[in-house]
Amino acid sequence: MSTRSTTIIRTVLQMRQWRRQCLLQNKTVGFVPTMGALHMGHCHLVKNSLAENDKTVVSIFVNPSQFAPHEDLDAYPRTLDRDLKMLETMFPEKQVDAVYVPETREMYPSGIVLEVEDQKGAFVNVKGCSEGLEGAHRPAFFRGVATVVTKLLNVVLPERVYFGQKDAQQCVVVKNLVRDLLIDTEVKVLETHREANGLAMLSRNEYLSPEVKDQAALIYKGLCAAKELYITQLESGAGAVPSKDILDSIKTIYSTMPSLWEVEYVAVSHPDTLEDLDSVDLAVGALISTAVRVPRGDSGVARLIDNVQLSPKI
Amino acid sequence: MSTRSTTIIRTVLQMRQWRRQCLLQNKTVGFVPTMGALHMGHCHLVKNSLAENDKTVVSIFVNPSQFAPHEDLDAYPRTLDRDLKMLETMFPEKQVDAVYVPETREMYPSGIVLEVEDQKGAFVNVKGCSEGLEGAHRPAFFRGVATVVTKLLNVVLPERVYFGQKDAQQCVVVKNLVRDLLIDTEVKVLETHREANGLAMLSRNEYLSPEVKDQAALIYKGLCAAKELYITQLESGAGAVPSKDILDSIKTIYSTMPSLWEVEYVAVSHPDTLEDLDSVDLAVGALISTAVRVPRGDSGVARLIDNVQLSPKI
Repeated sequence: MSTRSTTIIRTVLQMRQWRRQCLLQNKTVGFVPTMGALHMGHCHLVKNSLAENDKTVVSIFVNPSQFAPHEDLDAYPRTLDRDLKMLETMFPEKQVDAVYVPETREMYPSGIVLEVEDQKGAFVNVKGCSEGLEGAHRPAFFRGVATVVTKLLNVVLPERVYFGQKDAQQCVVVKNLVRDLLIDTEVKVLETHREANGLAMLSRNEYLSPEVKDQAALIYKGLCAAKELYITQLESGAGAVPSKDILDSIKTIYSTMPSLWEVEYVAVSHPDTLEDLDSVDLAVGALISTAVRVPRGDSGVARLIDNVQLSPKI
Repeated sequence: MSTRSTTIIRTVLQMRQWRRQCLLQNKTVGFVPTMGALHMGHCHLVKNSLAENDKTVVSIFVNPSQFAPHEDLDAYPRTLDRDLKMLETMFPEKQVDAVYVPETREMYPSGIVLEVEDQKGAFVNVKGCSEGLEGAHRPAFFRGVATVVTKLLNVVLPERVYFGQKDAQQCVVVKNLVRDLLIDTEVKVLETHREANGLAMLSRNEYLSPEVKDQAALIYKGLCAAKELYITQLESGAGAVPSKDILDSIKTIYSTMPSLWEVEYVAVSHPDTLEDLDSVDLAVGALISTAVRVPRGDSGVARLIDNVQLSPKI
């Protein structure tokens, strides 16, 4: 059993003081920002942070500004006790050093309402990469993410900050944000955790019937077909692969999906700007991403997202 | 003569290294961001920074994102040698420790074009306080200011950053930005420098004929009349002063301006949000600001801005 205990930090001032001590003791800090309701995906990020840094901070904050008025901010699960217990249980040897649980009024000193038109105060917008794909589906979402990540990074000042590749566009937005605003941190993106059948691990998966969960393996299977095509082309010495060929390889597989499922988009995008690509330059690579609407067990609809990266030729 | 010499810093990396040394030596840092073409107003800020901090950094960067396409970014004066000489001459005893002269490509890693619609990358917008007054006249100006100030603060990480009250709205925007994005610095706002007749010192004043310069004293005189009215009311024990009364006291004086002059606005605004006020609560105070278009010596038009603060009752 560990003798170390996790510090719970509630205020900006406490967080800054804690951070300053690390700096003066020359300890590096890794940071895992979360909205709580922790699952294995988060633990994977925490595990890497614990391994790569002297100290690890996990933040738990349900960020209002990334919710639209019609999305149910109040219904988002808030499970702090369970989250703390999970971190304690999962990492008995080397525990998380601090859990930062900020208050909304300190994170949004000008106040926060969900109607963008009525908002006051400072917001960060990452133009270009935040507008397509998931951004087209949720217009103010990445503005909310970029704003809260900027605030959190300004308080925690970590050497490294951890995100999951599952949310590929979020990773690109944060990388651009950190680079453009000259924030002194390294953005680490970790591979998507998957179920045994390849389905990306999402908290929404728990709403799926075993049958749908089984069939949903097709989502990743299609993306893998695209990746194989790309690698074959790359090995054959081609300079570029037309996006149409990539999309066709995916369509072949997605055409076998149940008829009620709706493929919202499949996109071939530049890995850094997320611009739509007509063809994939092998020296640049691409992000292939998709969103599919599938029936939930309770007769609602679950929106499943997934992606693969086509790595550039080195 | 001083034996210390000013360090010229050109890269983000060098600036961070310099800053880190200060931190490890427990030296406080004061920061004066400028666009160069330094004048006495800037020197006043530098002087205060030198007095209040162990180390002082002045940045010189003509920020493209605060220029509109129709404004002449290329024509903005770039006088680095003269600026460095001025700092050296003005402060022979305790010199500025570092002058940070960033490159545009490092400040805008996603590139920068002046057409807002075509811009890519991260931008900071301070909703509310940046929209009226000068913001109504120059729609993307404060977004550019907020963005570059965020970047500079993230690199320099100063204990204190200095601005002049002359640009009252800029001060409010920066204060809100620093508070909302949880940037760990203190914003110091220093009083407007004035000519002998009360005219606020602007670099544009040099375009004015002696006659216009003389008459332009009316601008500040009107604002002072408003302040006197406010103080009288305050001393009489009133709880609030109608904005109409304040504006009338200014109009009485502005009505004596030459007929060709154009008063663009006179506004009574909340000191923190810059919202228009119907009446000034003596517990809150207000900002009274104005912009006046006057003829220049070369038959063009100069836009003169000025403001006074109505301090709240303590």
